[in-house]
Amino acid sequence: MDEAERELKMNVVEAVGDFARLDIGREIRRNVPEIIFAQGKDDKDLVAICSRMLEKTGRVIATRLNLEQMETLTDKFRNHHVEKFSHAKSLVIRTGNRTRPSSGGRIGVLTAGTVDLAVAEEAVMIAQEMGCETFLEPDAGVAGIHRLIQPLKTMLDRDVDCLIVVAGREGALPTVVAGLVDVPLIAVPASSGYGYGGGGVAALMAMLQACSLGLAIVNIDSGVAAGVVAAQIANRVARARTSH
Amino acid sequence: MDEAERELKMNVVEAVGDFARLDIGREIRRNVPEIIFAQGKDDKDLVAICSRMLEKTGRVIATRLNLEQMETLTDKFRNHHVEKFSHAKSLVIRTGNRTRPSSGGRIGVLTAGTVDLAVAEEAVMIAQEMGCETFLEPDAGVAGIHRLIQPLKTMLDRDVDCLIVVAGREGALPTVVAGLVDVPLIAVPASSGYGYGGGGVAALMAMLQACSLGLAIVNIDSGVAAGVVAAQIANRVARARTSH
Amino acid sequence: MDEAERELKMNVVEAVGDFARLDIGREIRRNVPEIIFAQGKDDKDLVAICSRMLEKTGRVIATRLNLEQMETLTDKFRNHHVEKFSHAKSLVIRTGNRTRPSSGGRIGVLTAGTVDLAVAEEAVMIAQEMGCETFLEPDAGVAGIHRLIQPLKTMLDRDVDCLIVVAGREGALPTVVAGLVDVPLIAVPASSGYGYGGGGVAALMAMLQACSLGLAIVNIDSGVAAGVVAAQIANRVARARTSH
Amino acid sequence: MDEAERELKMNVVEAVGDFARLDIGREIRRNVPEIIFAQGKDDKDLVAICSRMLEKTGRVIATRLNLEQMETLTDKFRNHHVEKFSHAKSLVIRTGNRTRPSSGGRIGVLTAGTVDLAVAEEAVMIAQEMGCETFLEPDAGVAGIHRLIQPLKTMLDRDVDCLIVVAGREGALPTVVAGLVDVPLIAVPASSGYGYGGGGVAALMAMLQACSLGLAIVNIDSGVAAGVVAAQIANRVARARTSH
Amino acid sequence: MDEAERELKMNVVEAVGDFARLDIGREIRRNVPEIIFAQGKDDKDLVAICSRMLEKTGRVIATRLNLEQMETLTDKFRNHHVEKFSHAKSLVIRTGNRTRPSSGGRIGVLTAGTVDLAVAEEAVMIAQEMGCETFLEPDAGVAGIHRLIQPLKTMLDRDVDCLIVVAGREGALPTVVAGLVDVPLIAVPASSGYGYGGGGVAALMAMLQACSLGLAIVNIDSGVAAGVVAAQIANRVARARTSH
Amino acid sequence: MDEAERELKMNVVEAVGDFARLDIGREIRRNVPEIIFAQGKDDKDLVAICSRMLEKTGRVIATRLNLEQMETLTDKFRNHHVEKFSHAKSLVIRTGNRTRPSSGGRIGVLTAGTVDLAVAEEAVMIAQEMGCETFLEPDAGVAGIHRLIQPLKTMLDRDVDCLIVVAGREGALPTVVAGLVDVPLIAVPASSGYGYGGGGVAALMAMLQACSLGLAIVNIDSGVAAGVVAAQIANRVARARTSH
Amino acid sequence: MDEAERELKMNVVEAVGDFARLDIGREIRRNVPEIIFAQGKDDKDLVAICSRMLEKTGRVIATRLNLEQMETLTDKFRNHHVEKFSHAKSLVIRTGNRTRPSSGGRIGVLTAGTVDLAVAEEAVMIAQEMGCETFLEPDAGVAGIHRLIQPLKTMLDRDVDCLIVVAGREGALPTVVAGLVDVPLIAVPASSGYGYGGGGVAALMAMLQACSLGLAIVNIDSGVAAGVVAAQIANRVARARTSH
Amino acid sequence: MDEAERELKMNVVEAVGDFARLDIGREIRRNVPEIIFAQGKDDKDLVAICSRMLEKTGRVIATRLNLEQMETLTDKFRNHHVEKFSHAKSLVIRTGNRTRPSSGGRIGVLTAGTVDLAVAEEAVMIAQEMGCETFLEPDAGVAGIHRLIQPLKTMLDRDVDCLIVVAGREGALPTVVAGLVDVPLIAVPASSGYGYGGGGVAALMAMLQACSLGLAIVNIDSGVAAGVVAAQIANRVARARTSH
Repeated sequence: MDEAERELKMNVVEAVGDFARLDIGREIRRNVPEIIFAQGKDDKDLVAICSRMLEKTGRVIATRLNLEQMETLTDKFRNHHVEKFSHAKSLVIRTGNRTRPSSGGRIGVLTAGTVDLAVAEEAVMIAQEMGCETFLEPDAGVAGIHRLIQPLKTMLDRDVDCLIVVAGREGALPTVVAGLVDVPLIAVPASSGYGYGGGGVAALMAMLQACSLGLAIVNIDSGVAAGVVAAQIANRVARARTSH
Repeated sequence: MDEAERELKMNVVEAVGDFARLDIGREIRRNVPEIIFAQGKDDKDLVAICSRMLEKTGRVIATRLNLEQMETLTDKFRNHHVEKFSHAKSLVIRTGNRTRPSSGGRIGVLTAGTVDLAVAEEAVMIAQEMGCETFLEPDAGVAGIHRLIQPLKTMLDRDVDCLIVVAGREGALPTVVAGLVDVPLIAVPASSGYGYGGGGVAALMAMLQACSLGLAIVNIDSGVAAGVVAAQIANRVARARTSH
Repeated sequence: MDEAERELKMNVVEAVGDFARLDIGREIRRNVPEIIFAQGKDDKDLVAICSRMLEKTGRVIATRLNLEQMETLTDKFRNHHVEKFSHAKSLVIRTGNRTRPSSGGRIGVLTAGTVDLAVAEEAVMIAQEMGCETFLEPDAGVAGIHRLIQPLKTMLDRDVDCLIVVAGREGALPTVVAGLVDVPLIAVPASSGYGYGGGGVAALMAMLQACSLGLAIVNIDSGVAAGVVAAQIANRVARARTSH
Repeated sequence: MDEAERELKMNVVEAVGDFARLDIGREIRRNVPEIIFAQGKDDKDLVAICSRMLEKTGRVIATRLNLEQMETLTDKFRNHHVEKFSHAKSLVIRTGNRTRPSSGGRIGVLTAGTVDLAVAEEAVMIAQEMGCETFLEPDAGVAGIHRLIQPLKTMLDRDVDCLIVVAGREGALPTVVAGLVDVPLIAVPASSGYGYGGGGVAALMAMLQACSLGLAIVNIDSGVAAGVVAAQIANRVARARTSH
Repeated sequence: MDEAERELKMNVVEAVGDFARLDIGREIRRNVPEIIFAQGKDDKDLVAICSRMLEKTGRVIATRLNLEQMETLTDKFRNHHVEKFSHAKSLVIRTGNRTRPSSGGRIGVLTAGTVDLAVAEEAVMIAQEMGCETFLEPDAGVAGIHRLIQPLKTMLDRDVDCLIVVAGREGALPTVVAGLVDVPLIAVPASSGYGYGGGGVAALMAMLQACSLGLAIVNIDSGVAAGVVAAQIANRVARARTSH
Repeated sequence: MDEAERELKMNVVEAVGDFARLDIGREIRRNVPEIIFAQGKDDKDLVAICSRMLEKTGRVIATRLNLEQMETLTDKFRNHHVEKFSHAKSLVIRTGNRTRPSSGGRIGVLTAGTVDLAVAEEAVMIAQEMGCETFLEPDAGVAGIHRLIQPLKTMLDRDVDCLIVVAGREGALPTVVAGLVDVPLIAVPASSGYGYGGGGVAALMAMLQACSLGLAIVNIDSGVAAGVVAAQIANRVARARTSH
Repeated sequence: MDEAERELKMNVVEAVGDFARLDIGREIRRNVPEIIFAQGKDDKDLVAICSRMLEKTGRVIATRLNLEQMETLTDKFRNHHVEKFSHAKSLVIRTGNRTRPSSGGRIGVLTAGTVDLAVAEEAVMIAQEMGCETFLEPDAGVAGIHRLIQPLKTMLDRDVDCLIVVAGREGALPTVVAGLVDVPLIAVPASSGYGYGGGGVAALMAMLQACSLGLAIVNIDSGVAAGVVAAQIANRVARARTSH
Repeated sequence: MDEAERELKMNVVEAVGDFARLDIGREIRRNVPEIIFAQGKDDKDLVAICSRMLEKTGRVIATRLNLEQMETLTDKFRNHHVEKFSHAKSLVIRTGNRTRPSSGGRIGVLTAGTVDLAVAEEAVMIAQEMGCETFLEPDAGVAGIHRLIQPLKTMLDRDVDCLIVVAGREGALPTVVAGLVDVPLIAVPASSGYGYGGGGVAALMAMLQACSLGLAIVNIDSGVAAGVVAAQIANRVARARTSH
């Protein structure tokens, strides 16, 4: 990519009303789509931002939607292709001529318990929108280590380029998995658990303290952050695979 | 035990100078020996307390000794039987006619890494002085789960009445072990690890959050506390075994 | 138990839809029943999990139910035996041919105040479902130490194998009780109290710092965790008593 | 006291070099002596401040002295009356014509363990310098509640106007004592204990959470603060006793 | 008071149903009335406890009532004398033949801002029920130190035996007041303020760190704790005044 | 200033060996001198950085020097003008032809206690090197509010453009001062005090919670940060004064 | 200003009912208007305070209003000039003869994201009421540093006297901006973000740790505090500009 | 790799004395070398572990060595090839026939300041021992964003597969860099900075809160963890590049 093009990539910023600037250029510049964080936004602003986004890029990815916001957007954009992720409380909306990209990257997503599914699904959604194929295995446990072996074997058989492991409470699953594989692993603490260390804090700490090397962490419940960094890894591998 | 005897048990308190009261009755009353916590005590006071203890009970258990204190006591009581626990920085001193008790209780002690050995040894020492037989397996790991199987199998083959599992950093080992066995498990966080969650905090939190049921926790680095509660469990089982 | 049987115990995992794996084998393997944590589960999933559980094992133990969930389950399984624990917000549901087990283990449960009753009841329920006989004495106080003596004497007269002591606010009760008895003690901090150290934090810290040896801790409000570990202790003692 | 006198009391401030202002008027104004906190002060400044203090008020109270500072001051003021408090690492220095005041106030000081003695002694020293008679009972314990009864009875027999109770680790002693007496109680957390809640944090929290009413708290290790507030209470009672 | 009487004082404990033990003896033993903490109690239990209390002692003090609970109790006991403290969300209920006690103790209560009034009123209520005369001056400020002088002068003119100072946010008022007076001072942090140090934490810390000596602290929002300890101080002074 | 010049300002970066880049352009660009933070730097690197700095700009400002580093630099640059700030453990070194700048800005610096002097002196040094005249009044207290009035009056009489107020422990001084003046105030928490809220944490929180508006905060012990922002304020005022 | 006038400024305090003291003199004394913090105030008290304020000063500034309070005040004072700040949930109410002041001060306000707008608007409102001209640029980002350049250039072209920079999550924007400009900068952490460091804590810490010198901080979400201190800075500069 | 080989990989565990188990199989199994953490190990144990390691694998990687340990090992293994990393306080020791591996992976390492160099060097060392080519650019700053552009451009020109960015204090650099590039980024907080958020806590929080997507985090100062996960990413890309 030449210098001029690189310059250009830096400058595509789109204003919405007088309250927001969409970084539409991010996808061109970094191959990371702009994602709309819906929490705390009122319906009018949310619809305005989504409309502008759809018009400019042909796609909207909206996360942390409450039920009312989900309905509002689903209704408003009923003439578009709307994909609903109910655990993750997220939507992907597409114009007719836009399809989901395909990069060749492969990502495995494991969760320790069923409550971690919301986080995992958010990661899956983002990774797919960045072109990756994803394999999700929920509730692989660590209290009964034997529940882990089969799901993990499935992942490795599919030769995934990156693993995302979501775990709440004591957050031991990423440590155990990282000790068994040689695939880069992104660990995501989930905000389950109560009492001391609850809300994901114990899991976050445990993951940062993990004796098993080969893993890196994103913040508590950050399915989006995990999905993006995993997709960047997988896509870089995929480009290397296919660029020959 | 009759009421009068019970009363008696409550009242054996021995004054040392004007600065300490030894609860010598504790061993009679609760079957838990008085333990001298040496940290911060000056040599003169420490020797005075140990002398009185030895005279009254025939045994001294002293923990958290620095090197100088260890030498002072070893030298002072060189005519007695002195047993040194170098990792735990502890001593057991016995008069000639006093032997280590034997209760028939059996305790297994596992550690995740070599740095946890000091804590484990402290637990072993106390459990032995409360009459238990102990089986120690250090460095059983969790980053490589395969390192755990053989030591754990050894414990179970010996039919231990209680397990003590010491782990620092992410503290995942007790969770994993508790998920595999049906023996009561006392988990001890060790103060290893640096950064966020270091000093045993992540391990403590993770153990409190453990999904695996069947474990209870003592404070960071509290080998003594783990040893006592495990010995109380094991001794109660042993009494049940032998009281028929 | 032979190797083959041991293998088998490791492998009974039951899938429910595509979102959960029940560890039904846990009861066979570890003598610890699978417990359904209802918080955050929607009605449909909750009923599905309970139905499967009931079908496979003849019993459901569900905790942290809100009022609506309690009614849903009570109604849905009205043809079964439903036992309600209103303080603990928990249910035990049994098929007709299944009775509560009896192990011979004996557990005493003390609480410092009336607000700790919810936690204590959760522990009682689990311990009973693991076969133990339980003795509950609520509101034994510590601010007026004289309120403690009679309840404690009752427990000791019944020769309990393990004590569970629940206390909120300053959490001093387990320290005081452990200083008087020679029975293994599981301390549970309760999330009462406001201000600095409120929500069970002061109690947790105080219990971990307890000078009285012979106690171990579970997390704030974890009646389930206390019940399981206490039952494991008591059941091991009971097996020793009866295996002769 | 008339208005003019009251005004005057507000204004006695003495400059020392260009780095300190002594609030010598505090004793006139509030009946609280100025206390020199030695930690971090270099020898030259410390001696200068003490000399000025001695010259103006006939007395120096210096706390948190290291061994070298203690020797420096003892040597420098060897022609004065120097009283050494070795546990508290404090000194009281008096000119020949100044004697310790006597107010008629009575204060009892209890400690949970021997390590709390340094804090207790600091409180004793200040209370005495504010004119109170003090009664110190160290190591009254809480792990063995029976060790507490006799010392406490001694205090009450002496009809103390205020109790100071120092305790580290789980800090349960003030709760237990306050539940038994009707004397105002100042609780002081001591920085003993390691692990979670160590360094006096668990004790501080527990005291703030104490169910027993009738107690108030000062900061961790603040023997001085406890001594001053207790002396203010006792002295007010003493004035009421004697002003008739 | 003779030994037999003292014994008696220790033993008046009243059971309510099978869920609570009222420490009715506390008032006899410690001159501290039993106070009912309503938060989290359901209406039926609350009414039962209050009825029993009223029957046995002729008075109920109930705090932390929500609006519904206030109405329930006001209605239920409408034939008794019901005193409402609306800021403190508390009630005092008295049978006809019982009057508020009078001890001769005098307490001044200052607040930094209007939001601290709820806490101050709780302290006033308790102190009054323990027989003290109280003087309340709200909103004495510290941001404009001049607002403080007049209220404080009023307190001192009334020769109060103890001051209670309630302050939220930065909690500087007790420090400033304690620096000006020679009356024992109980500082109460109030849970006002948002952001870092909000919810009373900054105020608690600041009060514990106060350079001004002569103050002691109770927990955040603990008007009850402040009222009891201040009344104990004032009542002891009052007894000394009148016992001649 | 024109665009080209502005560009230029952005680009003066000087490499030192292969381990550091000095932002020498910062003074041109932002009127803030580069300051060398000595802590943790070895002697060789420290001398190399200072030499390069001196050569390029004619001045070195070095802070957080230990005694050995102070001597090394004083000796190494003995042929230059070396100004020593002993409380602040800092040095300003100047070549012969460079003089201290003069901007016309005026800054008052108040400290609550003597221990805050190190922080205050650091602020003074930086403000002077940015051209300001400074007025320092240490130990203005808050425990005796009367000690504050005269120093504060002195500041206001000098018509300072900005106040820096340093306070440790409860950190109340900035709140009190800000409530009395209409000058922008930079508050600096100092790391004095022990126990809960010690090390400057209570002071930081209290300052952030200050009811008095008109103040902003820098980090604990950050004399440098306070000095720079105060000087930027004072210098902007001074420029406005003189640019007419 | 002469001494008598200065005295006077100290003393204008206005009582409202028996629950509040308005510091109406603050504006005369410090040029900082009294601001009504509505949160937690009931409607009746709120209206009473506003009415009195309006009567005495001709203006009310009320912040942290909930929707109901906003409507109540808007309705109650519909005959006055009511200015609504909907993001900031604040109102300015003016009597007919009172106009917004004009001081000549200029302030730029930047926000990192759209969610920071509420905080920024609060600051803008206060600064305007203190007479400043304000320039607001929301959503200037830091994740795409290129989005920052244009808004910042606009600010500098307007020669602002002070910058306010509001940022949540990682709070990096003030660091980056302060590194580019030579204008005093007030940084405000906003309570956006979830997980570890969420709620503004990471932003607050990052701002206090900022390597870029030339900035000072107010508490999380404290738009009011930022507005006041920035206006004090800008107004002082403006007075210097115009007083010649 | 076939199943048998996979099995084998799981089982190479080497015992050293009775205190350690080396997971030598980790390199075969996961392509991650065993790394010796020297801190807290005594010389004798350290040498024993290194000797065994060298004998079995031909290489030792030892980190967190103090100066004495560095000398001991350098001397002991002076007949081998010893590579010293003085900032990282680490050694790589190789037998004659063993050379550093080469995988074709490429990693760029940026640091914000010079103090971050120790962490960066640790990452570089590990990445090199896992076969990667590394490019290190220290002191790229964020306070002066212009210092960043050239180093970053250099990295991108070399087409690195992964970036490691080390930053202390406010930790803003990874956020800024991630916002500009489309390469996976591993952020490492460094323990620089003092006051609130010091010791790497602010940096850790800021990185977890980073708005820029595409980055993941390891614990404070964990150069090793960053190096391993970055090398796993780069090596996977390299394998994809070369496997065609």
